[in-house]
Amino acid sequence: MGGKKVAGVLGATGSVGQRFILLLADHPDFELKVLGASPRSAGKKYVDAVNWKQTELLPEFAKEIVVCECKAEFFKQCDVVFSGLDADYAGEIESEFVEAGLAVVSNAKNHRRDPDVPLVVPIVNPEHLDMVASKKRGFIVCISNCSTAGLVAPLKPLVEKFGPIEALTTTTLQAISGAGFSPGVPGIDILDNIIPYIGGEEDKIEWETKKILGTLSADRSKVELIPSDQMKVSAQCNRVAVSDGHTECISLKFKNRPAPSVDQVKKCLADYVCEAYKLGCHSAPKQTIHLLEQNDRPQPRLDRNRDAGYGVSVGRVREDPVLDFKMVVLSHNTVIGAAGSGILIAELLLAKKLI
Amino acid sequence: MGGKKVAGVLGATGSVGQRFILLLADHPDFELKVLGASPRSAGKKYVDAVNWKQTELLPEFAKEIVVCECKAEFFKQCDVVFSGLDADYAGEIESEFVEAGLAVVSNAKNHRRDPDVPLVVPIVNPEHLDMVASKKRGFIVCISNCSTAGLVAPLKPLVEKFGPIEALTTTTLQAISGAGFSPGVPGIDILDNIIPYIGGEEDKIEWETKKILGTLSADRSKVELIPSDQMKVSAQCNRVAVSDGHTECISLKFKNRPAPSVDQVKKCLADYVCEAYKLGCHSAPKQTIHLLEQNDRPQPRLDRNRDAGYGVSVGRVREDPVLDFKMVVLSHNTVIGAAGSGILIAELLLAKKLI
Amino acid sequence: MGGKKVAGVLGATGSVGQRFILLLADHPDFELKVLGASPRSAGKKYVDAVNWKQTELLPEFAKEIVVCECKAEFFKQCDVVFSGLDADYAGEIESEFVEAGLAVVSNAKNHRRDPDVPLVVPIVNPEHLDMVASKKRGFIVCISNCSTAGLVAPLKPLVEKFGPIEALTTTTLQAISGAGFSPGVPGIDILDNIIPYIGGEEDKIEWETKKILGTLSADRSKVELIPSDQMKVSAQCNRVAVSDGHTECISLKFKNRPAPSVDQVKKCLADYVCEAYKLGCHSAPKQTIHLLEQNDRPQPRLDRNRDAGYGVSVGRVREDPVLDFKMVVLSHNTVIGAAGSGILIAELLLAKKLI
Amino acid sequence: MGGKKVAGVLGATGSVGQRFILLLADHPDFELKVLGASPRSAGKKYVDAVNWKQTELLPEFAKEIVVCECKAEFFKQCDVVFSGLDADYAGEIESEFVEAGLAVVSNAKNHRRDPDVPLVVPIVNPEHLDMVASKKRGFIVCISNCSTAGLVAPLKPLVEKFGPIEALTTTTLQAISGAGFSPGVPGIDILDNIIPYIGGEEDKIEWETKKILGTLSADRSKVELIPSDQMKVSAQCNRVAVSDGHTECISLKFKNRPAPSVDQVKKCLADYVCEAYKLGCHSAPKQTIHLLEQNDRPQPRLDRNRDAGYGVSVGRVREDPVLDFKMVVLSHNTVIGAAGSGILIAELLLAKKLI
Repeated sequence: MGGKKVAGVLGATGSVGQRFILLLADHPDFELKVLGASPRSAGKKYVDAVNWKQTELLPEFAKEIVVCECKAEFFKQCDVVFSGLDADYAGEIESEFVEAGLAVVSNAKNHRRDPDVPLVVPIVNPEHLDMVASKKRGFIVCISNCSTAGLVAPLKPLVEKFGPIEALTTTTLQAISGAGFSPGVPGIDILDNIIPYIGGEEDKIEWETKKILGTLSADRSKVELIPSDQMKVSAQCNRVAVSDGHTECISLKFKNRPAPSVDQVKKCLADYVCEAYKLGCHSAPKQTIHLLEQNDRPQPRLDRNRDAGYGVSVGRVREDPVLDFKMVVLSHNTVIGAAGSGILIAELLLAKKLI
Repeated sequence: MGGKKVAGVLGATGSVGQRFILLLADHPDFELKVLGASPRSAGKKYVDAVNWKQTELLPEFAKEIVVCECKAEFFKQCDVVFSGLDADYAGEIESEFVEAGLAVVSNAKNHRRDPDVPLVVPIVNPEHLDMVASKKRGFIVCISNCSTAGLVAPLKPLVEKFGPIEALTTTTLQAISGAGFSPGVPGIDILDNIIPYIGGEEDKIEWETKKILGTLSADRSKVELIPSDQMKVSAQCNRVAVSDGHTECISLKFKNRPAPSVDQVKKCLADYVCEAYKLGCHSAPKQTIHLLEQNDRPQPRLDRNRDAGYGVSVGRVREDPVLDFKMVVLSHNTVIGAAGSGILIAELLLAKKLI
Repeated sequence: MGGKKVAGVLGATGSVGQRFILLLADHPDFELKVLGASPRSAGKKYVDAVNWKQTELLPEFAKEIVVCECKAEFFKQCDVVFSGLDADYAGEIESEFVEAGLAVVSNAKNHRRDPDVPLVVPIVNPEHLDMVASKKRGFIVCISNCSTAGLVAPLKPLVEKFGPIEALTTTTLQAISGAGFSPGVPGIDILDNIIPYIGGEEDKIEWETKKILGTLSADRSKVELIPSDQMKVSAQCNRVAVSDGHTECISLKFKNRPAPSVDQVKKCLADYVCEAYKLGCHSAPKQTIHLLEQNDRPQPRLDRNRDAGYGVSVGRVREDPVLDFKMVVLSHNTVIGAAGSGILIAELLLAKKLI
Repeated sequence: MGGKKVAGVLGATGSVGQRFILLLADHPDFELKVLGASPRSAGKKYVDAVNWKQTELLPEFAKEIVVCECKAEFFKQCDVVFSGLDADYAGEIESEFVEAGLAVVSNAKNHRRDPDVPLVVPIVNPEHLDMVASKKRGFIVCISNCSTAGLVAPLKPLVEKFGPIEALTTTTLQAISGAGFSPGVPGIDILDNIIPYIGGEEDKIEWETKKILGTLSADRSKVELIPSDQMKVSAQCNRVAVSDGHTECISLKFKNRPAPSVDQVKKCLADYVCEAYKLGCHSAPKQTIHLLEQNDRPQPRLDRNRDAGYGVSVGRVREDPVLDFKMVVLSHNTVIGAAGSGILIAELLLAKKLI
């Protein structure tokens, strides 16, 4: 039974930390009690420590919480700790938290490639969470890179239904909110402009996709990455003048012949119901994939908030002269691509009695 | 001899027509004398007929020209007629002009697929202009679609050097100026947004590329299109919040093995000198392809005006896990992608003594 | 008691009409049953007639409603009819509806200056609604111009507390959603640009302010406009690259000396509770005016959705070297500046037993 | 005579410094020989030290110049030194340069309020440069704040013709390039947004206007500021999503009655010829003030480059219900509002034989 699980947030004053706080306000499963930030902020009330830059108001409950440093000793009461730490600090601090027996759900990239750390998009591969069942002490679950999250959402049902994907390309048009705001992308770089490069992003997509779509080993201790010669992934990443919502123009080729028809692909996407929804998780999208038939959709401004940002929109499914199919995928980068996934992962951990 | 060739412009009040007028101001080879527009504008001075919306002032010489209707009889004195007509009118009017013995350089799509009409990107396939040598009467030369122009620029030297391209993909991020301004793309559709669809555009890219890179027949009477089974082309087109400059993330695979190295590809691009420059054409870019080594370039705001918009920028040349290479191509859609190409085509026609 | 009032919408496929439909979905007081649009749309299901362009999905209830023409005979069952008609049609159609005994709440400008028609910003001058009490048959209530609505919100409490305003200036930075989307503001006109002109807007602000802040006559039959020599109003209107939310930099001078202090002005604004809230109207803002103390606020992206867009944000209240005070006012142009005001007006009519 | 004057640039790697370098390329009067920057950059070739972010290519001549530290000893050969230093460093360094007998033209704010330093907008108050004639050693001339420059341009001819201005208000819509790019305005703050505050800007406008429009004392040793009780100035400053070009909505009231007519005001503006043009200065605008009659102009994207950015555009001149007149002023903030003014000031110093 009884009562909510206690939650903490690391990196609480940053952009991801602020999103964690918004999503935990009035959450039915979790009560946020501990906020950790840099020594500069520690000791201050959160309302005084934060430069709040969300479109929703700072929730009342968080204002008076006194910020602590990001040390495990201050988070002992937490059933789960959400980390929005910068990569510069996340590696070491999160490891310390695990040592201290804490459950960490992290948005940082540092531990994503650790063999014993599940890398999870909650609407895609919740089964990978089973890896933490055997952990005697604390553990980390990593949230995927934002543009990877959107990409793998439609891939999962397609692979389940039609078998392996042999080749996959994505050209991303990514929102600036993904770069944070301290300072993130300079205005002069993005107004009337595109930046055809995001440091490290292409490599993240190409690698993480193979882990997220990989298979849990029989003993549930690790994930078998899809070998690069079995699934070729190529990403081209761009930053564009969009506030929220990553658009990806993807193409893919199945291994099995004959390939399915366009209608079969569409039906498979539209029918997909993620496990988190079946398990009754609070934040799980009612419709995991919104299949759009108008030829000019999805569009970030109009479609990014489907199912509060937990649903992924897919449109323009059509045959591709080079690979088998091409389509456009839109996902909300700060929800399913970051903090929102963290919350849904924690809900899954709870549903699976892993916290 | 002597004197400049006389030029006319069809669709003179539209966005492409306005660009023709700007580019013909103080041109060393052409003197613009005739401006044709709709019956609504005919009879007015150009300054009174036009809603001028360029960043440069309306040239003095054009202000007092009295606009005529788009009938061949009014253009008899013209050595060359530039057409910026809408597709709704271009087909019939341009055919009438050819019947009347006039040389038309058109930005409209209507005649691009006519077997005996050259479809020319002047920095790419000027040799296709030889098709008009045998014409007893008038002729049309078509300017390519804007996003096709940028795409084929780096392909030409690569094909010349390394042989046929077997597969080609492009995901475009296209500027709104390409949609004109009556009204073009609505502001509410493009602010904080992407439109992942441009009507007819993907088909144009996929078809026109095969004509532009096709081979002139031995008798110079037509172009042999590259068959679809020899060169697969796939395009995904997006409209983004950029004023001028189309960015394309392309990937390509050569037919011949082994494929060249990245350094060979780069050198080939950097070394390319277009024939128009060798022929001394006034508007030809000194550097046809600007090869950029910084990893975050080309960017439309910073790079679109290289060589007054006649040069194409290519960056991020690297290996592609799925095809052979990927790279980013930037071209100025209203210059090399539209009116500017028209002017340079006319300069080539003059250099080749075809007008 | 009994059941909800029946509502209809005129101009249901337009941008304002779409907003009315969203706001009436699940409304506790009204049930939307009749949708009127142009003859072109009449006879179609709404889902087939509309080009839905809202960030929220088209509500299920509206999809199957068969659109009718905008004739009073089809709206007989309606207790209130919301009009989002274009000014080209609104004048005549709305008059016909009044003739037929219907209560119309209109966003169109046509009847705003009619002496017997109340022009109402529901958080400002609900008392003007009393004018309709004596109407034997139907009546119109006009929603104010969007930029006027934001402007008068802080003026009302100030005038109540400190007496007449002698001089008032506003320079507006207006969102593009106010111009609709057929096509509204062209993208090429607003990207990297400002349009320092909105047709008719300055005159609307300068005139409507004097009616909204005017006094209801003793017999409640009309409003006495504030004479121009007692209150001078000057507006300068600009369209900027903002999707929703009008920002106004205003200055004002009180008639009475000594003028209040900055702190008195701030307190007066923060303390203001609009009558609609006191009456328990469903959509009334809990906080009518959000007084912001950070010097870089209000900002449209961050602050436009306060109280679901019914609250107005005011910041940077400070002394003005030329008049008495200057401040920045932000209001949501499609909520309190248009359809939202219409809904709240209807709630007020209901609370006042005028429908 | 003989040969060009030698020029140096302080803060050469910053955004203002980069603009100085562009404007000095191929300049008929100046040869740029010395580039000073931070110790971090010193010793490197300029091409290696700079993160070049201009739309024009880095001029060849500057690439190989070895950057030095900002110490006077390295600039001894310079006839004029242009300073683009940050305010954090400018005060002390520029003073040291004056001590060393150098002529400094500075874009920094530090010395603008020094009584013996002229604050000059070259198309407005070149006569203030006479203050430096008596200087035995070096001197500083300060470029005004960018938004002040645009504001005072139309005021000067009006004051000359119609006498003192008693009250003046301006609401600015300022471009982001004015904030530099390290990082300048964050993209997330300016996309779909306005920031209604620019630190220190309003005070600069309100103060600098009184110095620039002030009168040179009889002995030419100082400028008499216009007393605040004789000229009231009020500014409200906003940052908007525009790359280059500050738009200002201004209102003004003359002291003398009767006030001139709108036509008189327009004629006065259109007729103004700045002294720099009469003196034949290379960069002086042929038309100082471009008076626009279309009601939706000036617009930054279309009008900011008049006379290469040295001309100021004024539109919408009309009567103001509160003061006498209102109008819209557009100026290019990085040209007449910053580096460009510096170059034209140096040209004036040369024409006046002050360097």
